Amino acid sequence: MLSISQRGLQMPSSPIRKLVPYAEAARKKGIKVYHLNIGQPDIETAPAILDAVRRADFKVLEYSHSAGHETYRRKLAEYYQRSGIDIRYDQIIVTTGGSEAIRFGFMSCLDAGDEVVIPEPFYANYNGFAVEAGITVKTAGSSIESGFALPPIEAFEKAITPRTRAIMICNPNNPTGYLYSREELEVLKQLIIKHGLYLFADEAYREFCYAGEHFSAMKLTGVDEHVVLMDTVSKRYSACGARIGAFITRNKQILDTAMKFAQARLSPPTYGQILAEAAVDLPSDYFDATKAEYQKRRDLLVSRLNAMPGVFCPNPGGAFYAMARLPVDDADTFCQWLLESFADNNQTVMLAPASGFYADRSRGANEVRLAYVLNTEDLSRAMDCLEKALAEYNR
Amino acid sequence: MLSISQRGLQMPSSPIRKLVPYAEAARKKGIKVYHLNIGQPDIETAPAILDAVRRADFKVLEYSHSAGHETYRRKLAEYYQRSGIDIRYDQIIVTTGGSEAIRFGFMSCLDAGDEVVIPEPFYANYNGFAVEAGITVKTAGSSIESGFALPPIEAFEKAITPRTRAIMICNPNNPTGYLYSREELEVLKQLIIKHGLYLFADEAYREFCYAGEHFSAMKLTGVDEHVVLMDTVSKRYSACGARIGAFITRNKQILDTAMKFAQARLSPPTYGQILAEAAVDLPSDYFDATKAEYQKRRDLLVSRLNAMPGVFCPNPGGAFYAMARLPVDDADTFCQWLLESFADNNQTVMLAPASGFYADRSRGANEVRLAYVLNTEDLSRAMDCLEKALAEYNR
Repeated sequence: MLSISQRGLQMPSSPIRKLVPYAEAARKKGIKVYHLNIGQPDIETAPAILDAVRRADFKVLEYSHSAGHETYRRKLAEYYQRSGIDIRYDQIIVTTGGSEAIRFGFMSCLDAGDEVVIPEPFYANYNGFAVEAGITVKTAGSSIESGFALPPIEAFEKAITPRTRAIMICNPNNPTGYLYSREELEVLKQLIIKHGLYLFADEAYREFCYAGEHFSAMKLTGVDEHVVLMDTVSKRYSACGARIGAFITRNKQILDTAMKFAQARLSPPTYGQILAEAAVDLPSDYFDATKAEYQKRRDLLVSRLNAMPGVFCPNPGGAFYAMARLPVDDADTFCQWLLESFADNNQTVMLAPASGFYADRSRGANEVRLAYVLNTEDLSRAMDCLEKALAEYNR
Repeated sequence: MLSISQRGLQMPSSPIRKLVPYAEAARKKGIKVYHLNIGQPDIETAPAILDAVRRADFKVLEYSHSAGHETYRRKLAEYYQRSGIDIRYDQIIVTTGGSEAIRFGFMSCLDAGDEVVIPEPFYANYNGFAVEAGITVKTAGSSIESGFALPPIEAFEKAITPRTRAIMICNPNNPTGYLYSREELEVLKQLIIKHGLYLFADEAYREFCYAGEHFSAMKLTGVDEHVVLMDTVSKRYSACGARIGAFITRNKQILDTAMKFAQARLSPPTYGQILAEAAVDLPSDYFDATKAEYQKRRDLLVSRLNAMPGVFCPNPGGAFYAMARLPVDDADTFCQWLLESFADNNQTVMLAPASGFYADRSRGANEVRLAYVLNTEDLSRAMDCLEKALAEYNR
């Protein structure tokens, strides 16, 4: 008989989506909602790369090569070389967003029933891709007290089983903003060698580091066969709608395998590739302004949060997220209340309850993720709202 | 230890790709290769829709809604309404190509180990999506003698097991070009009702029908919960690189489930959606010229093929493919020979051996698929080559 698949039932809804109807209802009541809940950057896309699309000149909008335009792959290799990441163009498969790169990794390296170990909290959509692939996410817990530093090696050892095939890391981290150090990457290196595991590195936020240099997993030596880089231009160039990512590995067998998945879906989007190719030629100081802007916002956000009674927010070293512990029992309820029952000067704020980023439901209940994707003025107003809301909520 | 996943090993390579190195070698020898092997249309993309992309005006290239821009979904619903297909915008999820629509269907309706029944021969990439989803493709054989009409109901009954969840049909068909009649669709309707199955309808070539009207599976009455339409603008508007398709169903539960998969990958490509939205507003006679061109080519191709000694090519009613039986033992060997060892006037032709479209390896050994994606002059020259090649090969 007709039924939904089990994996369809298991497939998690977006943890942020649950609150959307409440935000819409608030807007309908005339309340302005400051959105700190989503990772959609407000930074303007560089006009030069939008123009590259406008100037594109062809008669037929054809499929590209399944691995992506060779011209773009060669350019992208230049970008990595400039970042000190030694990658050749033929070690790159251009993907439809970073999402597809993750999917290709899960599909190529793991079978149904296999396991991937991820530091917790983690990007919620990893769960979705895991359900699609029929694999199990095991976690090693990181804590807000340590600023979400790499969990101790014992936590990984405890999570690793005979079915473990990979460790996955997002660096800098979504949702925590934590920037893993070279030393932490070296710890992971020892683990993947010892247990014969892949290391999946999601480095979507590579260019946004405020507490030192980014150390890419691709810079680890002696583990060429282990490391798969899952990348995207979405955040880097504020070009989320381009849907262009990359699956990168020096492991030829894995690359060839991922290529078969790439061939089945024919090709990544052509326009996005044109835009992304132009992006590599943006001036060398292109990221400076964006980074400075994000850093200013981070500083404002973190200092405002920590000045609120009972709030604790470790200072994130990268990306554009911060996690904060609030003086509430249940952040899900509080975030809904913010939208449903609170307004200050006809304004409120939308946050992402952290529960959606934890597999262990007993953790993170009083934490929220804040994306600093608003200018400092709006961010400051949003913090006013949150401060008043917490006072009112706890009265 | 590090290894490729079993599904990665099982994942089929593109059946056409095997010949690519031979085509490249031929080109390097200075031989012109007429490509009848791939479904990349040569028809120019309408300038008006390319212009729509050039005129797009926004500051931030944002994620779209996971189901696609609402403006595009509303437009697309208009397109279906005009085609007599009663679909509302909120029954549509915009996908990244038709490929993703197929993936969403497999993932939402079937679990690993479940089965889908497809008339054979079939579009080879269905195999790839089946491997990704861990499902099994069972076939009901159609034959070149009948022009690849719907296999008899007994063939379906024989293929259906307790694990069968869906029947899948591509109409008009890739690779055969066969246009299923309303009567044939009604036969499938009885089957899906009797066995409680989904009907997946891939209608990528809907607009290219030469032997009567297209009858969409969406027009079947009383099976709203059963039918899932998997569509794409790739061939319709010669816009393969846009990567825009659609997952469409009146089954709310399935739509909601597919939506969770859509949310995990965030959004379909923005530029492609802009182009596809503009395409709906192309003049009402837009398809006439393209259809007339394809029909002219089909007529030329089919008559030339059937005039060759020992060749049989049923007249396809739609799409831009034809299947032909050649007077050779093994079409794979012959197609390779065409590229490796044959040239007429320094020209040769590349065909797709049909073996890649059959699950049953004993079938289709002497058949090829020809895509008529060349203008009639080139097509005629390609037929000259093939005719001479067959004579030489069989000497």
